[in-house]
Amino acid sequence: MTDGFNLAAMPSADGVWHHLHLAPEALGAGTPALPDGAIVVAQGAIAWVGAHTDLPDAYRPLPSHDGQGALVTPGLVDCHTHLVYGGQRANEFAMRLAGASYEEVARAGGGIVSSVKATRQASEEALFDAAVPRLQALLAEGVCAIEIKSGYGLSLAHERKQLRVARRLGEVFGVTVRTTFLGAHALPPEYAGRSDDYIRLVCEEMMPALAAEGLVDAVDVFCETIGFTLAQTEQVFQAAQALGLPVKLHAEQLSDMGGSALAARFGALSCDHIEHLSAEGIAAMRQAGTVAVLLPGAYFTLRDTHLPPIADLRAAGVPMAVSTDHNPGTSPALSLLLMVNMACTLFRLTVPEALAGVTRHAAQALGLQATHGRISAGCPANFVLWPLGDVAELAYWLGQRPACSVVRQGRLAVDGMGLHRMSPLPEHPPLSPHQA
Amino acid sequence: MTDGFNLAAMPSADGVWHHLHLAPEALGAGTPALPDGAIVVAQGAIAWVGAHTDLPDAYRPLPSHDGQGALVTPGLVDCHTHLVYGGQRANEFAMRLAGASYEEVARAGGGIVSSVKATRQASEEALFDAAVPRLQALLAEGVCAIEIKSGYGLSLAHERKQLRVARRLGEVFGVTVRTTFLGAHALPPEYAGRSDDYIRLVCEEMMPALAAEGLVDAVDVFCETIGFTLAQTEQVFQAAQALGLPVKLHAEQLSDMGGSALAARFGALSCDHIEHLSAEGIAAMRQAGTVAVLLPGAYFTLRDTHLPPIADLRAAGVPMAVSTDHNPGTSPALSLLLMVNMACTLFRLTVPEALAGVTRHAAQALGLQATHGRISAGCPANFVLWPLGDVAELAYWLGQRPACSVVRQGRLAVDGMGLHRMSPLPEHPPLSPHQA
Ligand SMILES: [Zn+2]
Ligand SMILES: [Zn+2]
Repeated sequence: MTDGFNLAAMPSADGVWHHLHLAPEALGAGTPALPDGAIVVAQGAIAWVGAHTDLPDAYRPLPSHDGQGALVTPGLVDCHTHLVYGGQRANEFAMRLAGASYEEVARAGGGIVSSVKATRQASEEALFDAAVPRLQALLAEGVCAIEIKSGYGLSLAHERKQLRVARRLGEVFGVTVRTTFLGAHALPPEYAGRSDDYIRLVCEEMMPALAAEGLVDAVDVFCETIGFTLAQTEQVFQAAQALGLPVKLHAEQLSDMGGSALAARFGALSCDHIEHLSAEGIAAMRQAGTVAVLLPGAYFTLRDTHLPPIADLRAAGVPMAVSTDHNPGTSPALSLLLMVNMACTLFRLTVPEALAGVTRHAAQALGLQATHGRISAGCPANFVLWPLGDVAELAYWLGQRPACSVVRQGRLAVDGMGLHRMSPLPEHPPLSPHQA
Repeated sequence: MTDGFNLAAMPSADGVWHHLHLAPEALGAGTPALPDGAIVVAQGAIAWVGAHTDLPDAYRPLPSHDGQGALVTPGLVDCHTHLVYGGQRANEFAMRLAGASYEEVARAGGGIVSSVKATRQASEEALFDAAVPRLQALLAEGVCAIEIKSGYGLSLAHERKQLRVARRLGEVFGVTVRTTFLGAHALPPEYAGRSDDYIRLVCEEMMPALAAEGLVDAVDVFCETIGFTLAQTEQVFQAAQALGLPVKLHAEQLSDMGGSALAARFGALSCDHIEHLSAEGIAAMRQAGTVAVLLPGAYFTLRDTHLPPIADLRAAGVPMAVSTDHNPGTSPALSLLLMVNMACTLFRLTVPEALAGVTRHAAQALGLQATHGRISAGCPANFVLWPLGDVAELAYWLGQRPACSVVRQGRLAVDGMGLHRMSPLPEHPPLSPHQA
């Protein structure tokens, strides 16, 4: 197992954080920037946040942490990943570039089948170890909550294995993990030609068993001409509904199947990809409060040219999230900030939209809007200190890896800025110019 | 000044490096992978490299370093950057996304003029400090040689300032820096409408003075309809030739100006961008041995859709390099590995082509092919140990920042793998299975 993570060794972030440049929207929708802000963390939760001048006297005796004027955003939320799988598909990537056809790649054992095979062959321990560096890459740039889907096991035992690894990653790293059961990701080879039988297995055996074990926070389906049909998707949603599980959908990535409207009827948390989303789909999502999850890494990797209907989503007021879609086939993305840049560059999201997309709206896509994606009293203490002057820099630099410090679940979990090494402020800091 | 760099504190890499998986082409064009390789470093240079079984007895008593089976490539070479400048243009990026026209951006002080203004206003110290984190981002992923252009000063004093900072970065960080004088980057505001006068200044005053101070390793021109004309480019090249300086060219990015053919006539080291390169340009470059430098970060950021003629360059045997083109306007790229991925994904380079593009061919674009971009006896010790199993992974992962270890100029300059912390091998390592 990779070393280098030890929750107990991470310093508590309890106390008063001074000298913070709170980013616009960090405190919730529409809130302005606070150039001289403060955050009080108590027992791992946000106790108070606001302008430094308004800090209540009661908090002044607490230990103090100097934020060095860092730009502060909420902890980032990566709301769509397939992070746990066996193997990787770099060789397939190379073969395709060298001119191999999809058939040749398939004959060489490539494609999603290869990930299913490698995932089934891997032990739970091996799957965990393989996911660790991928998770660490995301945590290092401020991710504090992440969704992890199953979908490479495609049998009860192997889907369970994936979801158990997802849960364990959350416990070991002290990061909020939302598990999504994606048994209906692809047809396993042993069910070739019998997709209805497989969907029955998903609905009647796999989903109830995994839900009973507490491994399922939501249910997802890959609804595409190359995936499952609208009718099959509806079956899975009905089974989820019967178990009281929220749904989400891989929808309209390659064509307009009408999946989003169906998902909205089931009150879906999110519809994801949605390059080919129709006006009816947008209207249904708005009605249902469903989040549109944009996945520029897959769009980029697949050299897609059909843009999602950003202007229409914006006009309709459908919340837009942005995520890595980390997966070994179509988006081996290890940086959520790169997705922010790509959402701006490729999809023309504005900078505030893209940042809401990896904080507030991403939390909403996971049903976590009450506790994540903003810095607010009562929420677990998840925030990121960036050595940057301007919030637009989070989107502007291409392939950056800023040396940020991250307070995650009340601990100083990443300390790129070296804050912990610096001497703390005196208990009663001198008055700021605002106070004098 | 940013701390965290201290050449003297970096451990020497002298000794025998065992357990290396030498990547294909690492030892030179066309060389195969060596799964159990070794490298001998003596006084900062490569003394020997080859299969571990062939390690000469004379080297066995040297201190030994365990490479842990890491994949090893030559130190990377970033052969086209504008790394030294004042300010940044994140706000302009945000304004454009929010719908501002180029005119509105210009009225708000944006565009290249803003970088010129900020560069002129900055002290040499401030320019150095601003460039440090950008350089460190590149060094952290294995860059061992980098080209840095002037071109935001646009007067003798300010171009000198930029080039002096470039030189100093090389000295302070122990990295090979090649300086390129790009006085003919843009027309400074005080020469508006008098571009011929400015070119005369570049050729007759700036270039000779800076060359005399040892600040110019090569000369470059921005030859475009929005830059300088073909005739002006030729003037600059003639001046460079008279001073014995090699030339390179920003060519055919936006249109086919015929710049590449001109550059080839002057034996240019490289023609860069070249999205609109013609068949004549390709033929001339082949003839002259000029490298084609591909800049996918700018292509991506500008949402260009006109691909460079990769298949024709490949067919002609013109060497292709890949670089960040780091600059604050059109490619604020901080990861050369991301450029490798983009060169594959967007330009369809094969993985070996893309890797040659940031090693062997990038070195050639700087005239450094005898000493850089390969691991070869007599070369300075520049190589990277990657915790990856397959060379294709360098291109496959999107937005990765692998925890690599870097031997740069004979020092263990980056140690993401923690090799230095691990106990060294015994002086006489046990025989490998190959030897037994
Ligand atoms: Zn997905
Ligand atoms: Zn350039």
